[in-house]
Amino acid sequence: MRLATRANGTPDGELVVVSPDAARCLPAGEKWPSLLAAIGMWSVAEHDLRTLATRLDAGEGEALDHATLRAPLPRSWQWLDGSAFQTHADLMQVAFGTDPIEHDKPLMYQGLSDRFYGPSDPVPFRSEADGIDFEGEFGVIVDAVPMGTCAADAMAHIRLVVQINDWSLRALAVPEMKTGFGWIHAKPACSMAPFAASPDELGDGWQDGRVCLDLVIDWNGERFGAANGREMSFGFHELVAHAAATRDLVAGTIIGSGTVASSDYAHVGSSCISERRAIEIIADGVPSTQFMHFGDVCRMEALSAGGNAVFGAIEQTVRQKL
Amino acid sequence: MRLATRANGTPDGELVVVSPDAARCLPAGEKWPSLLAAIGMWSVAEHDLRTLATRLDAGEGEALDHATLRAPLPRSWQWLDGSAFQTHADLMQVAFGTDPIEHDKPLMYQGLSDRFYGPSDPVPFRSEADGIDFEGEFGVIVDAVPMGTCAADAMAHIRLVVQINDWSLRALAVPEMKTGFGWIHAKPACSMAPFAASPDELGDGWQDGRVCLDLVIDWNGERFGAANGREMSFGFHELVAHAAATRDLVAGTIIGSGTVASSDYAHVGSSCISERRAIEIIADGVPSTQFMHFGDVCRMEALSAGGNAVFGAIEQTVRQKL
Repeated sequence: MRLATRANGTPDGELVVVSPDAARCLPAGEKWPSLLAAIGMWSVAEHDLRTLATRLDAGEGEALDHATLRAPLPRSWQWLDGSAFQTHADLMQVAFGTDPIEHDKPLMYQGLSDRFYGPSDPVPFRSEADGIDFEGEFGVIVDAVPMGTCAADAMAHIRLVVQINDWSLRALAVPEMKTGFGWIHAKPACSMAPFAASPDELGDGWQDGRVCLDLVIDWNGERFGAANGREMSFGFHELVAHAAATRDLVAGTIIGSGTVASSDYAHVGSSCISERRAIEIIADGVPSTQFMHFGDVCRMEALSAGGNAVFGAIEQTVRQKL
Repeated sequence: MRLATRANGTPDGELVVVSPDAARCLPAGEKWPSLLAAIGMWSVAEHDLRTLATRLDAGEGEALDHATLRAPLPRSWQWLDGSAFQTHADLMQVAFGTDPIEHDKPLMYQGLSDRFYGPSDPVPFRSEADGIDFEGEFGVIVDAVPMGTCAADAMAHIRLVVQINDWSLRALAVPEMKTGFGWIHAKPACSMAPFAASPDELGDGWQDGRVCLDLVIDWNGERFGAANGREMSFGFHELVAHAAATRDLVAGTIIGSGTVASSDYAHVGSSCISERRAIEIIADGVPSTQFMHFGDVCRMEALSAGGNAVFGAIEQTVRQKL
């Protein structure tokens, strides 16, 4: 089952169920006006939504206008982003010139959750000098998770999988990181691909709490990376359990994987510019790739072996904030 | 004007305006069902709410049952907590055994905002071994603040002032801080005192974006501290501007001061246990005060020179999570 959110003038948008070919949809209706409402009562909502999915499979539905699609969750109560790809973490130490991070638990920070840009929204930033970078990620949306839930039990709370661009301002990241307080300036709002998919919708692409799909990223029309999500050091169920260790997780909490990375980065590329710069530093002593300029376009879509983009595509232009 | 939120079975509760003696109230009504709804259209809502306040001043209203009061904002889209008292920051380095933090900007992290405990809610934690600590703070609630708003302009966006207990788990804080990602485990949900006050309600207690009131804290019935909020290195307007440097702030964003502290801590005490332990380390080489036990009670209220508790009191018992 795949879900999307159509713009309807409300902050949370209108929840729709999407057909397998993404050409048609059925509105979830007044009972489930938004995904945020549905995830709060998922055990009831899922049944209703899957009934609509069955009707779509049978050919029902109205035409889906992709131009109206927002982030599946245009806002939520909590966004906790992990950094679960060790290859990325290792390369970021090179990029940032920082010491290795000592940790025996997943790395995770709390980020801005009151706004997720839709898949084709222009993204405003104040200055190119801030080091504008994309970060291709996967994420999961959970229903309510009680404090102390273990990883094995956390798996069942993963209700939907999403694809995220975690926009980052690299020039601001290291000073904030060195305070130990995490990031405020370096982490503005993220973007989401248009479709949230139930884990079963991913088929073999969902294994051991990992999204085993290539995250294909193009920057200004040129292939930048196609790392697969399978190399997470911790599965999403382990990230959920980590997040819930000392807090109840509110329904609608989004947990991120951190930048998708492959140990075979020489062949598949990277999912953020900063990581490519680290690879250049290792090879040449200095980075040669610059961060983004206003007007640049970043496109991301996760492809199955059959070429199906289960989450749809994010394709956005970076703009100067007016 | 003072506002409160009564329990009514909804996640956001029912917004009421409170009489000067806190004995009466008038519901804000269907137009402004909750504070989160009102803060989203504050320029309109404020007029309506102040009209109710005038009627309360004239003696109207129904009896206010304090037992029904929740946090003024039982949940919000964003909670950004500063650490604006240098005395506290200096002492926490002693408590944590960490190096001084190099920074020329306010310190700030993003915390859990999907739940703020009410003033008399019991507060559940998993283990005493986590180092359960209270942190007495002040906070402000803003309406929508555009990205790039300067400190002078930010002042007008401060619509309400609140009093917060930022519960902390000290045994978990340092390892998280050393990752640079900020705190997930060490910062569970906070609590709020029952009344949110417009800045003018504080009179001389609101100066240069600072809450110049003594924050009186009792632990198990014994006076623990009464530090005044005036010694913030940055005013709240500067914290708001800092928060908004690279992001729009959603209406209802809560910005915290960090633990209220006084350079005269020898006489006025502290607003958290960890700070007292640091003072003991400086004096005796080792800390003698232990963190909280299940069943302990923490009471906090901010008193004016005349003895008025503008935000009301937080009085909560720490419990083991079942």
